[in-house]
Amino acid sequence: MSEEQSEDRRSAALDASDPLAAVRSRFLLPREVVAYLDGNSLGRPLEQTASRLAYAARTRWGGRLIRGWDEGWMEEPVRLGDELGRVVLGAAPGQTVVGDSTSVLLYKAVRAAVALDPARTEVVHAAADFPTDRFVLQGIAAELGLTLVPLPAPHDGGVTAGQVAAVVGPGTAAVVLSHVAYRSAYVADVPGITAAAHAAGAVAVWDLSHSVGALPLLLDAWAVDLAVGCTYKYLNGGPGSPAFVYANRDLLPRLRQPIQGWMGADAPFTMGERYAPDAGIRRFLSGTPSILAMLPLADMLAVIDEVGIAAVRAKSERLTAFVIDRYDAELASLGVRLATPRDPMRRGSHVTLDHPAFEAIVPALQARGVIPDFRGPDGLRIGLSPLSTSFAEVDLGLDAVQEQLLRRT
Amino acid sequence: MSEEQSEDRRSAALDASDPLAAVRSRFLLPREVVAYLDGNSLGRPLEQTASRLAYAARTRWGGRLIRGWDEGWMEEPVRLGDELGRVVLGAAPGQTVVGDSTSVLLYKAVRAAVALDPARTEVVHAAADFPTDRFVLQGIAAELGLTLVPLPAPHDGGVTAGQVAAVVGPGTAAVVLSHVAYRSAYVADVPGITAAAHAAGAVAVWDLSHSVGALPLLLDAWAVDLAVGCTYKYLNGGPGSPAFVYANRDLLPRLRQPIQGWMGADAPFTMGERYAPDAGIRRFLSGTPSILAMLPLADMLAVIDEVGIAAVRAKSERLTAFVIDRYDAELASLGVRLATPRDPMRRGSHVTLDHPAFEAIVPALQARGVIPDFRGPDGLRIGLSPLSTSFAEVDLGLDAVQEQLLRRT
Repeated sequence: MSEEQSEDRRSAALDASDPLAAVRSRFLLPREVVAYLDGNSLGRPLEQTASRLAYAARTRWGGRLIRGWDEGWMEEPVRLGDELGRVVLGAAPGQTVVGDSTSVLLYKAVRAAVALDPARTEVVHAAADFPTDRFVLQGIAAELGLTLVPLPAPHDGGVTAGQVAAVVGPGTAAVVLSHVAYRSAYVADVPGITAAAHAAGAVAVWDLSHSVGALPLLLDAWAVDLAVGCTYKYLNGGPGSPAFVYANRDLLPRLRQPIQGWMGADAPFTMGERYAPDAGIRRFLSGTPSILAMLPLADMLAVIDEVGIAAVRAKSERLTAFVIDRYDAELASLGVRLATPRDPMRRGSHVTLDHPAFEAIVPALQARGVIPDFRGPDGLRIGLSPLSTSFAEVDLGLDAVQEQLLRRT
Repeated sequence: MSEEQSEDRRSAALDASDPLAAVRSRFLLPREVVAYLDGNSLGRPLEQTASRLAYAARTRWGGRLIRGWDEGWMEEPVRLGDELGRVVLGAAPGQTVVGDSTSVLLYKAVRAAVALDPARTEVVHAAADFPTDRFVLQGIAAELGLTLVPLPAPHDGGVTAGQVAAVVGPGTAAVVLSHVAYRSAYVADVPGITAAAHAAGAVAVWDLSHSVGALPLLLDAWAVDLAVGCTYKYLNGGPGSPAFVYANRDLLPRLRQPIQGWMGADAPFTMGERYAPDAGIRRFLSGTPSILAMLPLADMLAVIDEVGIAAVRAKSERLTAFVIDRYDAELASLGVRLATPRDPMRRGSHVTLDHPAFEAIVPALQARGVIPDFRGPDGLRIGLSPLSTSFAEVDLGLDAVQEQLLRRT
């Protein structure tokens, strides 16, 4: 499909009417990448990121040296956390901090949650949740003698408020779930499930990794207790960029996490005798987080702030609908199955298509510069990072998928 | 002191005969920093670091995108760990991995150590160790019901093999100490103390933060069980760069750390039902470590590899001896006290001087571009990062200290 031809296509019209189309050019767009459909695994860098990193290394680290810690670095995890709260989490200041990895912060958050009432010994979660979530919970259950209550996931990773309400009770310590399921993109009912947890006296802990930066979040309004998330997907923080944790301010004074490091201590420079946690969200830090690795995230938050998360979500819905339209028109007849909810309210920012041939055709797609994600046993996960993905790009990617499937029939 | 005058000084002769003098020019040396004497808190960046970061962000992250994980990033924590082992730790491959922060890795290492024999319930440590080390141990002791045995530190943070031998016994689970004391620079006898721990059936866990990159380490030969360390001091990794953990290969198969994330799992991409730890050192990982934040460390290791850690240590000894010579000649008579061992075998790569006026004069030093570290109540910690520090720089810094003290008498 040449560029001339593509102007007649529906994708061209969708790009032309996309109010965010111009934002895409702020990202680095290497010519050989025809269709990047995995921004939900690793977001593209902004064009400015490389030079901003170099500038920070040269002028802040190299120029200010140790003084940098007194000139902003010490506050950066909380400052950036507050920005995350304001721009994408729906969280008032003082409840979010950046650092560690999602796995480490999930460990801290769940340990803090289950310590609130040691008489409660059950943790409800989704049987098909992302491995790290299940693995972290298995580890905590083993060390503390807790019982995991895995819910079957009718929506391939997602569970409903009704399911949760049916199992929580006086023995439930915490309900730990993902907002958007990593495979199906099913969107869980955060306020409904959180209310069901609260009705039983339990705490709700949310993993926002597959929603933050793509879907509006209202953590304060939803009365979420604790949440964690990663920043290298829709927040374009770079490979392994630091994660974040949110703790509701009403609960925060009672939350204690077990990794007592100096960065989470009250008055870290007094070097006191006994550890006392910081009064605020900083108590979730332990060691020194990477300052350089936070820079790309800060830049991306500024872009989202400029356009607004509502506009990001609107484009996300149009992009996922566009993929489903092409699935209906051309791929369903080739034996492809849709593994993502059709209801836009219950659909995150990626679409998973299943076909037994997908594993075999991924190398051919990659060779053509089409980069989706493969999730076994037979899922092609098409990530639609709203700000950096064009409809034309999706079209070219699905052309390649269709062509590869046709070659095999 | 003008540059002309400085040529007549002993420092000029020492720089002229320093075989590593030329290496200093590979670091970023901003003109306004007259004397950087805090490379033991945050090392300077290499000149190449800024452009290398930009290049990696542009070509690896931006160009290869998610494919980067298949093209080296997945192995980078272990590859870089092996490099650390070869160049600075004295550790054979497969025992070292890079990630998390020192506090988080210390937590994991100590949790793994004390889990080896739950019948052993005591942890020996130094009462004056760096706060994060004490805080982490206090947290672990509280959650597991262990007893901490804090040793008084005659050497301001350092303890002796005799002290350790006197307290370890059948109830000792682990001995957790710093190799170089963060305040006094006292060098602990790692093989002697490790042997004392082993004689009682206990495990030795070492924090190498203030020695790695400045002193030769022989972890394998010393039969160290576990070790952690930070990379932003003498390894010039940048603010908050990832830490590392070493686990002796004989012990490794029995070590389990509690934060079970997917990056530490056997076959992370199979997304299995139950967590099983990786067979090797990777089991100490949990979440995704920052790839960009590892780059400066990799570059610095290449420089140390080129000159050899023995040469780095030789210069370190000359630099600290030079500071002590000037202390003896000019500062002792002003009421300054030396808080660092005179014996070069027992002295790390910094020198701490105590004087009640130091806290008050630090701003005046900073205003003149002289940047030492202040450690309460009255310590000026003079860090001598061997590869990036010149004797002339130390001279100018001590000139400023002397002048400020003279002004106050």
